[in-house]
Amino acid sequence: MTRTLLLAGGVGGARFLRGLAAEVPPDHLDVVVNTADDETFHGLHISPDVDTLLYTLAGKVDPAQGWGLRGDRFDTMDALAALGEDVWFRLGNQDLATHLFRTAALQRGETLSKVTERQRQALGVPVRVRPMSDDRVRTVIHTPEGKLAFQEYLVRERARSHVEKITYAGIRQARPAPGILQAIARAELILLAPSNPFVSIGPILALPGVRRALRRSKAPIIGVSPLIGGRTVKGPADRMMRGLGFEATPRGLVEIYRGLLDGLLLDQQDQEHRDALTHSGIAIECLPILMNTAARSRRVARTALAMADHLPKTSRKAV
Amino acid sequence: MTRTLLLAGGVGGARFLRGLAAEVPPDHLDVVVNTADDETFHGLHISPDVDTLLYTLAGKVDPAQGWGLRGDRFDTMDALAALGEDVWFRLGNQDLATHLFRTAALQRGETLSKVTERQRQALGVPVRVRPMSDDRVRTVIHTPEGKLAFQEYLVRERARSHVEKITYAGIRQARPAPGILQAIARAELILLAPSNPFVSIGPILALPGVRRALRRSKAPIIGVSPLIGGRTVKGPADRMMRGLGFEATPRGLVEIYRGLLDGLLLDQQDQEHRDALTHSGIAIECLPILMNTAARSRRVARTALAMADHLPKTSRKAV
Repeated sequence: MTRTLLLAGGVGGARFLRGLAAEVPPDHLDVVVNTADDETFHGLHISPDVDTLLYTLAGKVDPAQGWGLRGDRFDTMDALAALGEDVWFRLGNQDLATHLFRTAALQRGETLSKVTERQRQALGVPVRVRPMSDDRVRTVIHTPEGKLAFQEYLVRERARSHVEKITYAGIRQARPAPGILQAIARAELILLAPSNPFVSIGPILALPGVRRALRRSKAPIIGVSPLIGGRTVKGPADRMMRGLGFEATPRGLVEIYRGLLDGLLLDQQDQEHRDALTHSGIAIECLPILMNTAARSRRVARTALAMADHLPKTSRKAV
Repeated sequence: MTRTLLLAGGVGGARFLRGLAAEVPPDHLDVVVNTADDETFHGLHISPDVDTLLYTLAGKVDPAQGWGLRGDRFDTMDALAALGEDVWFRLGNQDLATHLFRTAALQRGETLSKVTERQRQALGVPVRVRPMSDDRVRTVIHTPEGKLAFQEYLVRERARSHVEKITYAGIRQARPAPGILQAIARAELILLAPSNPFVSIGPILALPGVRRALRRSKAPIIGVSPLIGGRTVKGPADRMMRGLGFEATPRGLVEIYRGLLDGLLLDQQDQEHRDALTHSGIAIECLPILMNTAARSRRVARTALAMADHLPKTSRKAV
């Protein structure tokens, strides 16, 4: 069985991971999750992507939203609103327990890795999901109206602002969390989840040492496209791609991940773009990529794993 | 109308205050509330006595418990327990909003006075309830098994430990909150709520400057006994009185408040102790003191106010 490493963000990453976890035994699977859209709300440390992955793997995620907990209520948020607080980022009652648990641990000096590991064990999730860093990195969205934290851009402003630039505050001082460079080094296959390339996968790749570790790795790197017919299922990746001067197409994706990909899984609606990629040397597979059921997630994961079996060992030069 | 100041703790204080607030207009009523049993749980700053008074005045308190919010649920606590956290101090979903609101404000550098004032206004409570101090004071219960924080003693250990000594950590460095010495100075009547004399009223009296301000005041000081037939309705005051070498009787109470009281309201079940107090110079009234309805609270408050009308102006020497 292939030692597999997945780099992932939130909902798209979780949907793909639930399929992957059904195909790869937990001791052969490493997951590194973005934490650059972590935020502090009401004094609590929220790690949206960590929670979305763990809730999904634990079978507790709200199936309609793809994040949050199934059947959760919002008594605390309603009471906070009555106290005059701004509750544009709404946290469910049970979800709050996760943030209280994490925040109290961080305040005691525990690392995000450590508390995430305890959270994973408490949820009974066998797959090792690691936050990308124990240091604070924050995605900043630069718009004509000024800078926004990612959650402000996405949730409060509903991703309506034009995105001029994206930066990761704190990235130069941040170190990859313990175990991450080792997970890259031992991986025989590296997968990029169908997550936002700028705000989910981008921060992981930008961590000091990660590109170098990927360059040294001989494992093929396969991306799963977050696009279906040039649009994302969820989230603003397509708008961001266009806003930042890329096509919202598989070709745009290959450009963003320049030099990184050995293979790319496309949705069949984007099959027309296959030809445009023939000269890139990147292997392409097309299939229905919408993962709205567990069976579909599993099929996409199986396709990625099968693709890897047919790729040669790579020796990257300029990732 | 008499300018009235109430010093109060939690449930007993709240039950008396709801009667007092029905008799004294809000612009003639000041309330100073104990904060020495404040505690940090799950990273949140809990001010149990502040909340009990404000929830009661807002008509939102759980009527059976006398604290917490009516109809509140415990989803977050149950989820915290599932994460392996110790949840011996259980906070309701809506109650949590108060603690998140307060904690976030304190973390921003707001004072406890300021955030309590915003809480009061948000709850629509017209009575000015002030925390005794913006500084951290913590009641320490000394037992044969070691020191306990007050909530550990009361809630976790269910007040079963023998109490050898009670101290207030931080009291020497603490200052009375803004407005409190002024409220004492302008009061024409000072009432001690039927709260625990050691852990509710005691810390307020022990704040630097408070005894001196009381000594200078010419207002009569009237206490409402927390005892009914030598027992407290709720809480461990009777056991503490005995443990610390006092009788759990009105005479014990007068000893604890040595030199402070001009008048004392007793429950009719403690009428037998009246004679023992005739030489103390303290005016005594007996009436049914259990305040399990709003009407009974009001009757006790009226009795205290009427008693004050018949007391001479005092000039205390050694409070």
